[in-house]
Amino acid sequence: MDLELARRWLGTAVAEARAGLAEGGIPVGAALYGADGVLLGRGRNRRVQDGDPSVHAETDAFRAAGRQRSYRGTTMVTTLSPCWYCSGLVRQFGISRVVVGEAETFHGGHDWLAEHGVEIVLLDDPACVALMREFVERNPALWNEDIGDE
Amino acid sequence: MDLELARRWLGTAVAEARAGLAEGGIPVGAALYGADGVLLGRGRNRRVQDGDPSVHAETDAFRAAGRQRSYRGTTMVTTLSPCWYCSGLVRQFGISRVVVGEAETFHGGHDWLAEHGVEIVLLDDPACVALMREFVERNPALWNEDIGDE
Repeated sequence: MDLELARRWLGTAVAEARAGLAEGGIPVGAALYGADGVLLGRGRNRRVQDGDPSVHAETDAFRAAGRQRSYRGTTMVTTLSPCWYCSGLVRQFGISRVVVGEAETFHGGHDWLAEHGVEIVLLDDPACVALMREFVERNPALWNEDIGDE
Repeated sequence: MDLELARRWLGTAVAEARAGLAEGGIPVGAALYGADGVLLGRGRNRRVQDGDPSVHAETDAFRAAGRQRSYRGTTMVTTLSPCWYCSGLVRQFGISRVVVGEAETFHGGHDWLAEHGVEIVLLDDPACVALMREFVERNPALWNEDIGDE
């Protein structure tokens, strides 16, 4: 895909991540774009805000998009490499593409998705890296809880 | 694990599935049990009831259990083989065991979980098979929507 467009879409996910951080939450954000480029849903990790461990950023954006008959051609944009849970979401529902802000602070399932035909656009965005690195350094226990790491 | 206990726990998931069916929903139910055998959370597919595509039975049970520091020793019980989304949940959070009511009407990611060290107890329960078979026959479009199948 066009990288300028990917970076613009990433901006939506970054805005969600920053809003989450301001709420005292885990700063991961996501957005789901339709095949026609329309924003279907956006969201952020809500573990802290809602006390809900099931709402990672990608699932929140997916939920916000509501019921869809097909995800063909859609793009999930996320500030961070998707964990197995969110990678499973992408694979199960046939989301066509994932734009990943960074995979340096956490390496999730995006290689597995690529093996299964999902287009992966890894942006290696320095602002996304800095956001997570600083958060994880300050909140290691909370971050480990969010990825099920003991 | 003890199969009698597995069948008893499956009863909780089946009760959730039947409650979902009575609400007009997709009849898949789940329950998360702690390492000590205590019920941590139970739930059911809520696509129809809440208009929320992100709430499969397993994620609903996981959500109902609230924030947990560790899932070591826990058991996810589900009436149906977990899809990639729910299989990813199990893998990411380190849930130790999955009790599967049936994998005949839908074959999800339980083999993949077994490869990654999750104990799988497949019960081949005829009541679970009958519940799903009848539902899918009557509601093929809704079922396909729920598993992202066009």
